[in-house]
Amino acid sequence: MIESTAETVRDTTAEEVDAIATAAAAAAAPWAAMALTDRAAVLRGVADRLDAHAAELVPLAMRETHLAEPRLLGELRRTSFQLRLFAQLVLDGDFLDVRIDTADPEWPMGAPRPDLRRMNVALGPVVNFAASNFPFAFSVAGGDTASALAAGCPVIVKASPGHPLLSRAVGNLIDQTLAEYGAPGRTFGLVFGRDAGVRALTHPAVAAAAFTGSTAGGRALYDLASRRPVPIPFYGELGSINPVFVTPEAAGTQAAEIASGLLTAVSASAGQLCTKPGLVAIPEEAPLFSALAELIRERPVPTGEMLNAEIAGGFARAVERVRAHPNVELLAGGGPDEAMLLATTARTVLKDPDALLHEMFGPATLLVSYRHTGELLELARSVGGQLTVSIFGDRVDDTVRALTAAAVSAAGRVLWNSWPTGLSVTFAQQHGGPYPATTAPTTTSVGTAAIARFLRPVTYQSVPEDLLPLELRTDNPLSVPRSVNGARPR
Amino acid sequence: MIESTAETVRDTTAEEVDAIATAAAAAAAPWAAMALTDRAAVLRGVADRLDAHAAELVPLAMRETHLAEPRLLGELRRTSFQLRLFAQLVLDGDFLDVRIDTADPEWPMGAPRPDLRRMNVALGPVVNFAASNFPFAFSVAGGDTASALAAGCPVIVKASPGHPLLSRAVGNLIDQTLAEYGAPGRTFGLVFGRDAGVRALTHPAVAAAAFTGSTAGGRALYDLASRRPVPIPFYGELGSINPVFVTPEAAGTQAAEIASGLLTAVSASAGQLCTKPGLVAIPEEAPLFSALAELIRERPVPTGEMLNAEIAGGFARAVERVRAHPNVELLAGGGPDEAMLLATTARTVLKDPDALLHEMFGPATLLVSYRHTGELLELARSVGGQLTVSIFGDRVDDTVRALTAAAVSAAGRVLWNSWPTGLSVTFAQQHGGPYPATTAPTTTSVGTAAIARFLRPVTYQSVPEDLLPLELRTDNPLSVPRSVNGARPR
Repeated sequence: MIESTAETVRDTTAEEVDAIATAAAAAAAPWAAMALTDRAAVLRGVADRLDAHAAELVPLAMRETHLAEPRLLGELRRTSFQLRLFAQLVLDGDFLDVRIDTADPEWPMGAPRPDLRRMNVALGPVVNFAASNFPFAFSVAGGDTASALAAGCPVIVKASPGHPLLSRAVGNLIDQTLAEYGAPGRTFGLVFGRDAGVRALTHPAVAAAAFTGSTAGGRALYDLASRRPVPIPFYGELGSINPVFVTPEAAGTQAAEIASGLLTAVSASAGQLCTKPGLVAIPEEAPLFSALAELIRERPVPTGEMLNAEIAGGFARAVERVRAHPNVELLAGGGPDEAMLLATTARTVLKDPDALLHEMFGPATLLVSYRHTGELLELARSVGGQLTVSIFGDRVDDTVRALTAAAVSAAGRVLWNSWPTGLSVTFAQQHGGPYPATTAPTTTSVGTAAIARFLRPVTYQSVPEDLLPLELRTDNPLSVPRSVNGARPR
Repeated sequence: MIESTAETVRDTTAEEVDAIATAAAAAAAPWAAMALTDRAAVLRGVADRLDAHAAELVPLAMRETHLAEPRLLGELRRTSFQLRLFAQLVLDGDFLDVRIDTADPEWPMGAPRPDLRRMNVALGPVVNFAASNFPFAFSVAGGDTASALAAGCPVIVKASPGHPLLSRAVGNLIDQTLAEYGAPGRTFGLVFGRDAGVRALTHPAVAAAAFTGSTAGGRALYDLASRRPVPIPFYGELGSINPVFVTPEAAGTQAAEIASGLLTAVSASAGQLCTKPGLVAIPEEAPLFSALAELIRERPVPTGEMLNAEIAGGFARAVERVRAHPNVELLAGGGPDEAMLLATTARTVLKDPDALLHEMFGPATLLVSYRHTGELLELARSVGGQLTVSIFGDRVDDTVRALTAAAVSAAGRVLWNSWPTGLSVTFAQQHGGPYPATTAPTTTSVGTAAIARFLRPVTYQSVPEDLLPLELRTDNPLSVPRSVNGARPR
């Protein structure tokens, strides 16, 4: 049963946070020690409960976030799918990265090699700061929670203030599932309020944290995590402009597709996506420019209401900051709950990147006109760390190759003739990138590789069989994949 | 030719550091783009040059570090072996972690999956802070340099002040090898002096840093790295006490072996090893206790001179700090260049862990007597983050299982009836651990997995074949191992 009748959820007190963190620390060893099949069953159990309660959860999410029903139904499906994908990952065992080196008296290093057996273990309690814009997929039972639980870590979620009742309802479903499978009850905890989040992050029992949100908020938490007496890994997914570079050729031949695709990508979910394209470079005087303006003038693109007043206020301030620049004009749109196109020149952006390479989290994008491909390339090399860079082109030529090289330097994901919104949850996904896109460029927060953030390796040296964990025993009773003496795992 | 006639090496100026960092940034793309066979050839070329110049390098190292010739010859062999092991790793291609998801319109997430292809790319210029205690293996051409170059990153080494002439000589060999293989010359840089190191670490062109040294020094640099406008990963291997827990049974049956093994482990390289056991828990009134005292009183264990006056001074201060405790006594040893045994009780350590769980980087260890196994377990659960924990026991019983669980929680490597010194460079090695052992518990600084520190993943979405890097093309012209649609790599 979902409890969701209360109208507000009060902030968690400092004493309650301490109790939750201490309980999570106590749950760490038993949760990590549960059989992988049980761990996978819990993840699937949460997925099943989410699906079973869709009829209650989705309306609750609609009320708290103003997002539309189809979007939320799709997001819920994505969320339960994601939990099941991590369950499968747990069963496959590859995430353990088991490596066995047999003793070798002739090891050419110059000293005999002892028997060494290495596997990943859970890092310990993780604090996840939930995002406001994906009330299911990046929130209480979202990717950070799924990957940390899959790694064997207890999870404390700091709920988004944007959907507290939904957060509590989903938290209850997780609690029920843990109880059903006999997992330690405090493997999962939920806290509300900014102070509670900070207290959890700085609690000595906490071993890592994940965050999805703004650059300013994420950096402040990263600083807290790094300044602890015992610093901890902080996996922050912060801001990204997700630049789109349109070659002169594509601006002609693909004008209609790019125009309509851009308007969809900018307006979907009221532009409140971390992968929303916020800068689109187009050759000056390209037909695409006027096509876009006309399209949006003829038929304004409705976006729906924003998530909440705080997000709407932040968006208004970000837009104001960009519009205040003397060389930026409002090209079209921008009425209430309507997509907005701003315009400037590549020269302007290159002269004043700090003012203009600034995320507007909402339904707006900045069209940047360039005079020649040299300017386009200069722009591409100046955008800084990004989650995504998209290139629209007709053929692979030197300009496109140079754009791609710049994109790979800047971003975690590089797209060709496609829009970065609509992030697939799968094996080869990379949702990350150099700072400020994230605080941890070697990791991803979406896709199966996200589990690696919450694992650390331990090597057992010359440990007898009956003292080894099952994963490392010579007869491999769990049949986990293993790499022996450097060979590929099997 | 090795230049090693100058008597001193001056500090690198700020302008020189800036030039080196800027040049490293310019070298990043061409070095990362060199064929993997060429990258491997450079690593092997450095190894060959080190071996070829042993007759000049080893005497230089002896003069600068006071370490003995056999130790340095062994270390040089380990260092060139390590470079060749990373060369092999580069050729194998597993480090690229190539993952391919084919387009799937039926992907059960609820939205069609596009074609996604993911691989690791080099992070960018890396600053390595060389250690003083391994003038080859953890210095200019040591593990951090080998793994970063193998990852495709330019490297700037901040030389240890302990062996500047050797550092310059080895740096010259690396430069010569890069030139021989047509690599960008500034793929490698070398800077001297504390200020130069800080300037390199905080230079905008630098993307990551690695460090081996003291907790205080490492933490200060970690803080600088985290407080940059663009924070960067800082892989610091800091302090470790490497506790050894001897069960009551083993203290009886293995007394002679443990006594002699301990004295060797504490005195080797004058105790200047990050894996030197600094705390040994033994049951009170065990024969081992008196055996050790007698052994060392009868025949003091010579250690040789320490690396330099700064290290010797730091060791003297650390010993003084521990000895100042009213419940700590000098059991035996401690004459000039002689191993030293201090003694206290588990009660004392548990009451005052901050004072007594303190690394003494030199030939000293603290024997800690416990009254019963409950006290032993309490101690094992209180030691904090460690590189290693060793357990000496006769049979696997509940005490040993509980000790092992505590060891896995605390450390990156857990040993049975073995000493943690003498670290094997191999596939299953883990040299790392929770803070303060390291600042990055999910990584290792020794063994093949060390390369992962300097890589970040990039996903190509719907990118045409002729724009993909060779590693990601469908026909796999480089025959790199790849995971397709989540299957195990082949």
